[in-house]
Amino acid sequence: MLQRFKSFLIGKPLSNEAMEHERYSVLWGLPILSSDAISSVAYAGQEMLIVLIPAIGILAFGKMAFLSGAIVALLVILTISYRQTIDSYPNGGGAYIVAKDNISVPAGVTAGAALALDYILTVAVSVSSGVEQITSAISVLKPYSVIICVTLVLLIMIGNLRGLRESSRMFGLPAYAFIFALLSMIVWGFIRYSTGFRAPEPTYQITMNMLMPLLLLKAFSSGCTALTGVEAVSNGVPNFKAPAVKHAKTVLLLLSLIILFLFGGTSILANLYHVIPGDRALLILIAEQVFGNSSFMYYFVTATTFIILIMAANTSYSDFPLLLSVMAKEGYAPRQLSMRGDRLSFSNGILLLSGVAIILIIIFQAKVTALIGLYAVGVFLSFTLSQFGMFKRWRRVKGKHWHYKASVNGFGALVTCIVVIIISISKFSEGAWIVVLLIPILVFLILKVKKHYTSVSIQLSMTKDELNEIDFDRDVYINRVIVPIESVNKTSVRAIRYAKTISDNVTAFNVSIDEESGNKIREKYDMLDTDIPLIVKYSPFRKIVEPLLEFIESAEYEYRKGDMITVMLPQFATKKLWHRLLHNGSRAYIERQLLKHKHIVVSVMPLHLKD
Amino acid sequence: MLQRFKSFLIGKPLSNEAMEHERYSVLWGLPILSSDAISSVAYAGQEMLIVLIPAIGILAFGKMAFLSGAIVALLVILTISYRQTIDSYPNGGGAYIVAKDNISVPAGVTAGAALALDYILTVAVSVSSGVEQITSAISVLKPYSVIICVTLVLLIMIGNLRGLRESSRMFGLPAYAFIFALLSMIVWGFIRYSTGFRAPEPTYQITMNMLMPLLLLKAFSSGCTALTGVEAVSNGVPNFKAPAVKHAKTVLLLLSLIILFLFGGTSILANLYHVIPGDRALLILIAEQVFGNSSFMYYFVTATTFIILIMAANTSYSDFPLLLSVMAKEGYAPRQLSMRGDRLSFSNGILLLSGVAIILIIIFQAKVTALIGLYAVGVFLSFTLSQFGMFKRWRRVKGKHWHYKASVNGFGALVTCIVVIIISISKFSEGAWIVVLLIPILVFLILKVKKHYTSVSIQLSMTKDELNEIDFDRDVYINRVIVPIESVNKTSVRAIRYAKTISDNVTAFNVSIDEESGNKIREKYDMLDTDIPLIVKYSPFRKIVEPLLEFIESAEYEYRKGDMITVMLPQFATKKLWHRLLHNGSRAYIERQLLKHKHIVVSVMPLHLKD
Repeated sequence: MLQRFKSFLIGKPLSNEAMEHERYSVLWGLPILSSDAISSVAYAGQEMLIVLIPAIGILAFGKMAFLSGAIVALLVILTISYRQTIDSYPNGGGAYIVAKDNISVPAGVTAGAALALDYILTVAVSVSSGVEQITSAISVLKPYSVIICVTLVLLIMIGNLRGLRESSRMFGLPAYAFIFALLSMIVWGFIRYSTGFRAPEPTYQITMNMLMPLLLLKAFSSGCTALTGVEAVSNGVPNFKAPAVKHAKTVLLLLSLIILFLFGGTSILANLYHVIPGDRALLILIAEQVFGNSSFMYYFVTATTFIILIMAANTSYSDFPLLLSVMAKEGYAPRQLSMRGDRLSFSNGILLLSGVAIILIIIFQAKVTALIGLYAVGVFLSFTLSQFGMFKRWRRVKGKHWHYKASVNGFGALVTCIVVIIISISKFSEGAWIVVLLIPILVFLILKVKKHYTSVSIQLSMTKDELNEIDFDRDVYINRVIVPIESVNKTSVRAIRYAKTISDNVTAFNVSIDEESGNKIREKYDMLDTDIPLIVKYSPFRKIVEPLLEFIESAEYEYRKGDMITVMLPQFATKKLWHRLLHNGSRAYIERQLLKHKHIVVSVMPLHLKD
Repeated sequence: MLQRFKSFLIGKPLSNEAMEHERYSVLWGLPILSSDAISSVAYAGQEMLIVLIPAIGILAFGKMAFLSGAIVALLVILTISYRQTIDSYPNGGGAYIVAKDNISVPAGVTAGAALALDYILTVAVSVSSGVEQITSAISVLKPYSVIICVTLVLLIMIGNLRGLRESSRMFGLPAYAFIFALLSMIVWGFIRYSTGFRAPEPTYQITMNMLMPLLLLKAFSSGCTALTGVEAVSNGVPNFKAPAVKHAKTVLLLLSLIILFLFGGTSILANLYHVIPGDRALLILIAEQVFGNSSFMYYFVTATTFIILIMAANTSYSDFPLLLSVMAKEGYAPRQLSMRGDRLSFSNGILLLSGVAIILIIIFQAKVTALIGLYAVGVFLSFTLSQFGMFKRWRRVKGKHWHYKASVNGFGALVTCIVVIIISISKFSEGAWIVVLLIPILVFLILKVKKHYTSVSIQLSMTKDELNEIDFDRDVYINRVIVPIESVNKTSVRAIRYAKTISDNVTAFNVSIDEESGNKIREKYDMLDTDIPLIVKYSPFRKIVEPLLEFIESAEYEYRKGDMITVMLPQFATKKLWHRLLHNGSRAYIERQLLKHKHIVVSVMPLHLKD
């Protein structure tokens, strides 16, 4: 039944061959890989104004236009840089790979950790912002923000567990609808303004005192969130249909153009119409000014903004698990993350991403302004490492125009590095400290994981010579069997019968709480009339494992070093799931304790209950 | 390290022999078994006034005195009834046992379920009320009520996991301090009043409209919570030092006298001083009137009331696990509940009680008035069943003065039955419906559990004749071994070596995702130069269990019905706990899937990693 429910939620399993058909074209790849980047238009500008307006009032709009220009310039640099990365890394040039290949393993791992963190934050920020749009229009929903966010994350999770292609279908159309909605708003906004429409001038309450440079840096840091998600395309190159490189580069270019138009356009509109975001979201306020608050277009902008933001989280759902699976395959993350699930998606990564994002949403109560402090440090750190890696790469491999290419990437590295420093400092007390602290910790853990896997593989590996030398027939040890029995019944008889087939040295073993019950068992056991000895031990501490281990080591057992001991444990297999609660309470515990000993093998024998 | 931490928290393990020393004297038994009953003085009267005052203003105090008289009369009846029960059931005469013995199994199980529910509610109500006392005196703590309550439950839990005697020491003195504090308050309160002191008359806002009879019944129901906990003594008879019956009867009598004085006395004081509980607790308000709000005695009453209430929860911690262990031993609850832990307390019962109580506290936000609606139905239902059971018992066993004894218990049954009906109806919409619904569900589940255990024991049991007939040397089946290998390394070599000692029919088995990796393994395997065949299967769905099961059933394997198949699974034993996360991700899953098949035994072989 559980299986059927899973299959209903997740869809039927797909075979490995189905992989080929699960790749993106430009048309569907653009929305799925760019929704994160595009959607950040919904909050980047808004968060800039939330920093600026309380401090400098109407002057905020002018400064915002200036800062937006700087951010767009940054976008252009990143786009040129990343197109070079796609060319050089057709198999997926995430910052992790580029930095590891060209700088060092710790640099690569740092980029990986930073990106992983930011993917998680993307989910939290996007979903929270999406819900904020909706609650701006429908204010009765406001108290339920957190619950709505969590539900949405779970829905996206299920969608992604169903596999790639269905995601891209599911997420493609709304992205185009959003682009259409915003372009219409920008165009109509300009027309209305140029025909002389003026919104009533709002009043400003200037409450904060802050130094202008720090203020601008803070606003710039908030605005930089518009560029998160740009790297998604270069990570996802192998997910494109052939020719993958060409398709990926096209998508990246289109993506940048779209961000340029939408981010630039809405920044200018905000300036023209002087709207003040706060309780309500910026885009919704602009739409109200441009279209009026009961027009179809007002609701269309609200709805598509909401949807694109929810979908933006989906970008993380295709990249986070992929990143972790690449790291896991190389031993830099737990192996489980490298296994694809029934529907060819990396189920464990998807579950991990959803879990942490939900925790963040609950902690920060789904508030975008609170989450934004943590955001973007990670992305820009990985930008820097990736660009610097490319720079070193050009200096190593040379090739045509390498001077030009190296300087493009070098400049990108320099600029993004400055941005990292700006964000870390200006947003430090607003949450960036968490990320600044967390990244080194993650890097430390990742390197520990790798060290462990390396050590294990050395411990397990055998050389050709060693393999050739093995002779399975030479000095084979004796296998002894101990059958712990609680009472003499069908289980114990069955276990003893099995034990006899695998060894000539079988011992039955019972732990009794008092002598009376011990004698009862012996009496019943004697009826079996077998030559297999029964040992009864009295355990004052009601322990089972300790008396058994003591017995094994006692002279009574005559254990010869090098022999193996197989301990039989019964396992009730129940038909009804809840019956399991009524059995096997201590089996797992005993098994774990026994397996701490090298010379003990635990044999679990199922006993099938009818009811 | 975990072991050491546990030992620090819980104390060193105690052996079975230590049981004898863990029993109560009258001096220490009185506080530990009666703190529930005594402490209910802190909320019973208060909850009556909370019902009455908003409806009838100053008239409430007169009605309260009248209702308190009725409740004290009920207490007298119960005390006489229960002393007879202790005489008849020296091994612990909980309502469960009395009803099961004398009425029927469903009646006993109903009493057990009702009591179990009320023990849980006792923890939730007592702790919440205790914290309410403290926040009445120190109002800055009010917002943290829920967290404080949860922490306290956890502390009591740890105290109880440490074992009985330490509990009684820990909980004895504060109970006496509380009794002393309240008696002082009552005496001083009477003296002050008789010397002419009058508190300023408060103003009443009469806001509710309710029919007088219903109002009185509601208040009476709230007041009846004063009697919860009276049955604790008769349940706990075997926990007393010899002569247990005499000690238990003495404790019950003392307990009733204390309740009579404290409950009666505070009711009269509330009446004399006309205090209005609401935001602040009744006892604290009275103490303020009697002693003044900055005197030592004011704080002494606050502190001891707080402590006795917290300790009251402890009554449940000695009775709930005992009740469940008795039920579990007879198969009416999961077996795990009948096992004593390291310190001779029933650890699982203690953990279960704490868990559910914490959930209740969180759901009802630690509000006594909200929890009180659920309370007392269960207790009075078990009173009724227990008294009716005793009534039937006297009619059966007769004996000296049986007519008198039967009529005492019969009258007790009748009165408490009426109380059950009153509480269920008058508190129905305030939460009693939950209990009224839950008890039949619990009874149903308990009977299901019993049915399952009975069915299992029938399935497992063997008659003498069957035991005598067994001949372990006759028609022994063949044991075959399959060794699934991921690659050819030390693990697989070790597993094959072991397999050869337990069977002559060994097969190595590999599941590859593609042919390339399959060929690689075969190549390496051939170096071993062994006659054990290697089967390589290609799994398009990345599944491991299914190809193995298909292979077993295929003609290729030549499986003969009746043979057993042992499947070897490696288990990495890691030194560091967190390394476990990096391994064995799929082992438990594979084991569970394989054990669904009767003819498969799973042998788990530990592989000890150095680092």
